[in-house]
Amino acid sequence: MTSMGNRTFHSEADLIAWLRRRTPRRVPDLLVGIGDDAALLKVPPGQELLLTTDMSIETVHFTTTSHPPRAVGHRALARSLSDVAAMGGIPRYALISLALSRATERTWLEDFFNGLFALARQFRVAVIGGDTAVSGGKISADVVAVGTVHRNQALRRSGAQPGDRIFVSGRLGMAALGLRLLLERRRIRKPLDRAALRAHLFPQPQCALGRFLAARRLASAMMDLSDGLSIDLRRLCDASRVGATLFGDRIPIPPLPHVEDALDLALHGGEDYQLLFTVPAAKCSKVPHHFGRVPLCCIGEIRSKRGMDLITSEGQALPVVNRGYDHFARISHL
Amino acid sequence: MTSMGNRTFHSEADLIAWLRRRTPRRVPDLLVGIGDDAALLKVPPGQELLLTTDMSIETVHFTTTSHPPRAVGHRALARSLSDVAAMGGIPRYALISLALSRATERTWLEDFFNGLFALARQFRVAVIGGDTAVSGGKISADVVAVGTVHRNQALRRSGAQPGDRIFVSGRLGMAALGLRLLLERRRIRKPLDRAALRAHLFPQPQCALGRFLAARRLASAMMDLSDGLSIDLRRLCDASRVGATLFGDRIPIPPLPHVEDALDLALHGGEDYQLLFTVPAAKCSKVPHHFGRVPLCCIGEIRSKRGMDLITSEGQALPVVNRGYDHFARISHL
Repeated sequence: MTSMGNRTFHSEADLIAWLRRRTPRRVPDLLVGIGDDAALLKVPPGQELLLTTDMSIETVHFTTTSHPPRAVGHRALARSLSDVAAMGGIPRYALISLALSRATERTWLEDFFNGLFALARQFRVAVIGGDTAVSGGKISADVVAVGTVHRNQALRRSGAQPGDRIFVSGRLGMAALGLRLLLERRRIRKPLDRAALRAHLFPQPQCALGRFLAARRLASAMMDLSDGLSIDLRRLCDASRVGATLFGDRIPIPPLPHVEDALDLALHGGEDYQLLFTVPAAKCSKVPHHFGRVPLCCIGEIRSKRGMDLITSEGQALPVVNRGYDHFARISHL
Repeated sequence: MTSMGNRTFHSEADLIAWLRRRTPRRVPDLLVGIGDDAALLKVPPGQELLLTTDMSIETVHFTTTSHPPRAVGHRALARSLSDVAAMGGIPRYALISLALSRATERTWLEDFFNGLFALARQFRVAVIGGDTAVSGGKISADVVAVGTVHRNQALRRSGAQPGDRIFVSGRLGMAALGLRLLLERRRIRKPLDRAALRAHLFPQPQCALGRFLAARRLASAMMDLSDGLSIDLRRLCDASRVGATLFGDRIPIPPLPHVEDALDLALHGGEDYQLLFTVPAAKCSKVPHHFGRVPLCCIGEIRSKRGMDLITSEGQALPVVNRGYDHFARISHL
């Protein structure tokens, strides 16, 4: 092991000790954290529990050459926090399973956790457990988020009704544009390009917005945009057994005149981690145009007829083709 | 995709639909299961929540050539259920994150889930969520188990006191012996060899025993034996800030005269998923010799002096060397 020098942690106990030092001593409702067989926690009365898990895999979700390890850690946690936000919950705890490659250096691992812990602190999320292994393969992280939500306030995908308006938060396609800029390895100078890069590398889960919509009972259905509007809205519609009409000129595309396929990015680009939600028409006036700095846009309407159409600015109705990201579909691309 | 025929699932939605069909409709306290952004559940009053996660990675925890997929699925869940057992809890739910290789066939995947679901049914555990991805790399599964435990009954690693007796359930080293038989690819004829192979491929988490010890308040500390007695007992001792003396002739080794290193297997072999627990001397008479068919053996005593010694049948005290499984230590084996 001496030959490895400072390049890596010397043992699993060494890594766990390092993680424990970076975990707050006192965490509300947590009875046992990292270091035992399982974490133990209390759930406050009147609260229900949310559980979700998301993987981040080298070459699928990130590459070690393009993505700074801080961003990999941030995004791994952001994916799971966004799922809690999408149910209207408050993220409370996280568990991290991390499979390292034998070549993973200690500095990479520390930066990964620095990025992850920075986001965790921002949302007051405590890392309470996980698992580690060293394999000959690629790096992969599986992050479990545990959230709480007030009884009967959780928002599902299945509540949309014909006539409900369709809203999204933020600008769609920004993360996909950021990924493109990252892979092109161009020097980023324009502030909007920088914003797109940041949207890809350091997405912000919309937890406060999700909580607001759930607590005010404004939304009838909600989910987060992880794989792209076209595939995710279809999932919401399928769960609710409805269809949707989108208005092309209302979709908040990246505000960059030099991007020619901005609407395509907004429709099919993934990893925005914005919220997609439906609001009964009678409640639409209560939805603000901005939540903090995040714009909220009405982009369409739920209908009883299944399927999805996009109304162009010329008034033409085009069927929306499912081009979002499906991991299994990739098999057929080989 | 047509060229793939029946070899794989056609989409993530296809796999999720298959999984949902195999999940019971009504699960106690579950409000939202597979198919939304997060699972949603109620925690009954008077109960605390246990959370644990364990990875199973191809070439680290199993190989597709040696291990039948049913066993891979069984073991992936068993690892996590055993952690819940080790805290004295009842496992209730599981979330499965599965990274598949592009070469993974549908039959492998179905058998993996068949093995996992069979164990889940046995313990009335409901699969309530997860994540899937297809990568170019190895298969890996991360299984989260969620359990409940009565308030103030959870057993930690840190409660052992000098004078407490050390107990283990079952026979130790059986799984390691089973793995050896598996890798040697010998024809298995003897019933005891078959039992060893079964101990490796289909370990039984000791949930009822863990529950019994917690509910009767017999144990002062508990954990499960996943990496080997020598490393796991050291972890329990470190958490409790104590040391241990083991009696070599009381350790329940594999009962096979032709196995020359039976004591080594029992001390250092991993993946037995038996329980290791300490009992105050005054309560030892209340610990049965068997729990169901599983023998419970007193193998040593907790002491205040740190470190671990093994007393041989000749009365000699030998320091116990830490030779259990540490994932990070493997880096140095390259």
